[in-house]
Amino acid sequence: MAKLVGNAVIGQSGGPTCVINQSLVGVIEAAKKSKEIKKLLGARHAVKGILKADFIDLFKEPKDVLERVAQTPSSALGSVRMKPTHEDCLKIFEVFKKFDIRYFFYVGGNDSAETTHIINEMAREEAYEFRAFHIPKTIDNDLKINDHCPGFGSAAKFVASAFIGDNLDNRSLPGIKINIVMGRHAGFLTAASILGRRSKDDGPHLVYVPEVSFSEERFVADVKAVVEKYGRCVVAASEGIHFANGQTVAEKMAKTAEVDTHGNVQLSGSGALGDYLAELVKRGYQGQKVRVRADTFGYLQRSFPGFYSEADAREARQVGRDAVKYATSGEYPSGSVAIKRASNKPYRISTFVTALRNVAKETTCLPAKFIVPAGNNIKDSFKAYCAPLVGELPVAERLKGW
Amino acid sequence: MAKLVGNAVIGQSGGPTCVINQSLVGVIEAAKKSKEIKKLLGARHAVKGILKADFIDLFKEPKDVLERVAQTPSSALGSVRMKPTHEDCLKIFEVFKKFDIRYFFYVGGNDSAETTHIINEMAREEAYEFRAFHIPKTIDNDLKINDHCPGFGSAAKFVASAFIGDNLDNRSLPGIKINIVMGRHAGFLTAASILGRRSKDDGPHLVYVPEVSFSEERFVADVKAVVEKYGRCVVAASEGIHFANGQTVAEKMAKTAEVDTHGNVQLSGSGALGDYLAELVKRGYQGQKVRVRADTFGYLQRSFPGFYSEADAREARQVGRDAVKYATSGEYPSGSVAIKRASNKPYRISTFVTALRNVAKETTCLPAKFIVPAGNNIKDSFKAYCAPLVGELPVAERLKGW
Repeated sequence: MAKLVGNAVIGQSGGPTCVINQSLVGVIEAAKKSKEIKKLLGARHAVKGILKADFIDLFKEPKDVLERVAQTPSSALGSVRMKPTHEDCLKIFEVFKKFDIRYFFYVGGNDSAETTHIINEMAREEAYEFRAFHIPKTIDNDLKINDHCPGFGSAAKFVASAFIGDNLDNRSLPGIKINIVMGRHAGFLTAASILGRRSKDDGPHLVYVPEVSFSEERFVADVKAVVEKYGRCVVAASEGIHFANGQTVAEKMAKTAEVDTHGNVQLSGSGALGDYLAELVKRGYQGQKVRVRADTFGYLQRSFPGFYSEADAREARQVGRDAVKYATSGEYPSGSVAIKRASNKPYRISTFVTALRNVAKETTCLPAKFIVPAGNNIKDSFKAYCAPLVGELPVAERLKGW
Repeated sequence: MAKLVGNAVIGQSGGPTCVINQSLVGVIEAAKKSKEIKKLLGARHAVKGILKADFIDLFKEPKDVLERVAQTPSSALGSVRMKPTHEDCLKIFEVFKKFDIRYFFYVGGNDSAETTHIINEMAREEAYEFRAFHIPKTIDNDLKINDHCPGFGSAAKFVASAFIGDNLDNRSLPGIKINIVMGRHAGFLTAASILGRRSKDDGPHLVYVPEVSFSEERFVADVKAVVEKYGRCVVAASEGIHFANGQTVAEKMAKTAEVDTHGNVQLSGSGALGDYLAELVKRGYQGQKVRVRADTFGYLQRSFPGFYSEADAREARQVGRDAVKYATSGEYPSGSVAIKRASNKPYRISTFVTALRNVAKETTCLPAKFIVPAGNNIKDSFKAYCAPLVGELPVAERLKGW
């Protein structure tokens, strides 16, 4: 395979994360050093920007600015949730030809991998010489092939820390507290709520993930049993919890269901699910006075600044750099950079190239081995998998006397 | 006035903060060094613990544990929302006499100052020789007399940071985003949402505080005008916003209104207000497709660990230490430790003693000078007041090219 020389385009797609700009800066750094990439253009709002040739010349960005951008959450190039149509792809190639784009880097989750795949397939059909690389990113941690995904570690650190604080708040003013965590189909982020548990009575006491069918009756009974035992109860529930028939709890109570072009229903950006679960519990106590509260962590999980995981930031940078390395190596016509855990103690990863179709569209979910048989909690064995991705958690100490 | 020698009790009351344990540890440190305090008992769940003589011997806590407890959010002694009745107070004195309690320290907001005041008045009536000191704490920043309150700076840092990240998230995936911030009557914490604004188009673009009457029509028109200008809109709204007739928006839509023994309606721990405002906006666009999301920051604002303001932590420690100093000085029969800003550049505070009745029950609110005439935003002059309390904010950098 010949080494390609030309220009490159990069886009950031889908929900932002706290470290997605690390990957962007990783690509910029490596592209600058490469002999094959003459110019690196950043597409504003991903494919939407490519369609309009709305580009930023990324080699003109000063080094110190890039270092600070890398530490900044949210997609610095702007994002989009859009699956290009056949017509879009034709337009995209007009733009690519016009700008002599020979390298295409797309940072995102499974939907973004699908977009990369579609564009790459069209390039093949048109016999346009081209390298299309997907760079993994998702707080949901649900990309196939990968041990874990950049963006997840930082979101998991936020969620684990939030539960550490909220558990103490609940211990201080006892009651029933329900927290809704992001994660449409995969329970990884919700499972991360347990990372800070140390004492036997630490919450979350109950954890509900989308991998297990949800029953309203069982949920209320679970909460009552925990309150009986500890006088309080902290619950972690995924936004994607659903009944045995597949309907999500959020859908059941949603008046209006918004759907994006990938067919995903809006679950985030509303407190309705938490409030609904709180109502269920209140009704379950049949008029007895109980203090029930619900919080929905919302977009803070993916955008809270200054609180990322060091390992996550490092790896997000690395997959960006490695994407350029693989793309310019002349060994791969296209691919997705994937993460393998090389060793757990000491924790170390390596990357490799997998075919775009392997990570596109379909996702993976939390392995059953991490879920307790009753389906209402996460086993401590999940910590061994997750803790290295998150790093050190904030100080949380109790008085010796209590 | 004679110097009193005896034992002391400390309680932490009301909503916890990220630095309330700094004040606890400040009291423990100073009490240990004092000649007057023989034993310091921590009351579990504040007055509730005193009534049951449910105490922890705080002089037995190891120094390293205390240092870590100081950095831990939420009340390490447990909290309560309870106004003691006359009967409660009588019981409290039985306990105080039995344990030779001559010093009473109560960390909390205006409700806790009221509790301290009530207990102190009863002590006077009973001619029980006694020193009752209130130690300020509230994320609402609404205690009278004080320049600002311990706990506020850290909550403000959380809110300001959350808006930095959320504004970038919204810039990346444009739409209308509404964030609900804690603050029943005072808009200080909601106003802190502006601290991270740097570029002209940075959100929050609209800020609604309880100091200004809220109009649904004006709100929708405001949002539309911002969207017209920037193609997106980030809103900060206090949980306590209310109509001109005094009814809060939250009350209007609440099916069930929970009330505590101080007469406060539950506003936090529900996403209903944010969802209601989002619905208003959607309806305002009359069927046009708009992306509207709402997040309610909830209890994270007062309990998120590892993210406190250094100045806030230092001052919370100081008011604890100073409470012991004032109480054991023989100069004051009772009082509340208050904060004065000694200098703004360099930022420096000093403390003084004010009468309990001066901070009890009634609260203050955000001065009108910080609110724009239209009532829908906060002036940048608020930054000069607030920034020193919060300290450095996380890195947030944009690409030079955009």
